Amino acid sequence: MLDHNYYMKEAIKEAHKAFLKDEVPIGAIITFDGKIIARAHNLTETLNDVTAHAEMQVITAAANALGGKYLKGCTLYVTVEPCPMCAAALYWAQINQVIYGTTDLKMGSISKGYQLFHPKTTVSGGILAKECAELMTNFFKQKRS
Amino acid sequence: MLDHNYYMKEAIKEAHKAFLKDEVPIGAIITFDGKIIARAHNLTETLNDVTAHAEMQVITAAANALGGKYLKGCTLYVTVEPCPMCAAALYWAQINQVIYGTTDLKMGSISKGYQLFHPKTTVSGGILAKECAELMTNFFKQKRS
Repeated sequence: MLDHNYYMKEAIKEAHKAFLKDEVPIGAIITFDGKIIARAHNLTETLNDVTAHAEMQVITAAANALGGKYLKGCTLYVTVEPCPMCAAALYWAQINQVIYGTTDLKMGSISKGYQLFHPKTTVSGGILAKECAELMTNFFKQKRS
Repeated sequence: MLDHNYYMKEAIKEAHKAFLKDEVPIGAIITFDGKIIARAHNLTETLNDVTAHAEMQVITAAANALGGKYLKGCTLYVTVEPCPMCAAALYWAQINQVIYGTTDLKMGSISKGYQLFHPKTTVSGGILAKECAELMTNFFKQKRS
C-alpha cells in the first residue's frame, strides 16, 4: 500500500499549481480505497471567491466522483491545516480521515482551539510539513518583495 | 429605508424554493446599499454537495455581483442561524452584518458556542423567527411521516 508521503506529494503538486497562478499555495487530494478520486488547489483569486479553498473544492469533486455527497471511507490529504470553514465542511462530509502537512498557527482550526471536525474523523498532521510550509513561506516572501 | 422584515421575507421566499425542491428549507439574500445583490437557497441534495448551503452560494453570488471577493458593506439575511462552515466563510468574506431568522440549537455556530464570525461583523437574530422556524419544522415533520 502506498504511504502518506506518496499522497501528500500529490497534494503538494496541486499546491504548486496554485503557486504558479499566484494563489496561496495550498493543495489537496481525496482518496478512496487507496485511489485518488479528486484533486484541487486554492483558487480564491482566480474564482474571486473566498470559499474556493482547496479543501472545499476537493470535497465537491470527490462527491461528484463517488456519486454521493458523503465522503465516508475517504481520506483527505491537504498541504496546510484546514481553517474552520474547511474543518466544518469536512464535518458535514463525514470524511473518514484528514491528514495535513504543515500547521497554520494563525488560521488553522485546531491551532485556534476549535473542535469542528466530526468526532468520527481521524485527524493528523506533520506529513512532509517542511515542504508544505516552504511553499507558503516562499509565496508570502515573494508577495512582500 | 426598507426594514429587516422586508429583506427577511425575501430570504424566506428563497427558503420556500428549497422546500419545493425537497431541500432543507433555508434561504438567504445579500444586500449592498439597501439593494438585493444576490439570492440563494440550500441545494445540498440537488447539487449532491454538502457545501451547497444557502449562505455559501449567496456569498459566491454576491462576490460575482460586486466584482470583488470581499463583502465589506454588505448585509446577509438568512432564515436560519449559520452553521460553523458558513460562519467561517462569512469571516473570510469580511461581511459587515449578518441577520438571521430562527436559531439552530443543534448546528448553529453561535448556539454551539463558537466565535467564528469576524470581530467586525455585527450579528443578530430573531427576525421573523417564527416563520423561518415553521418552514423547518414542517419540512422535518413531512420527512418523518
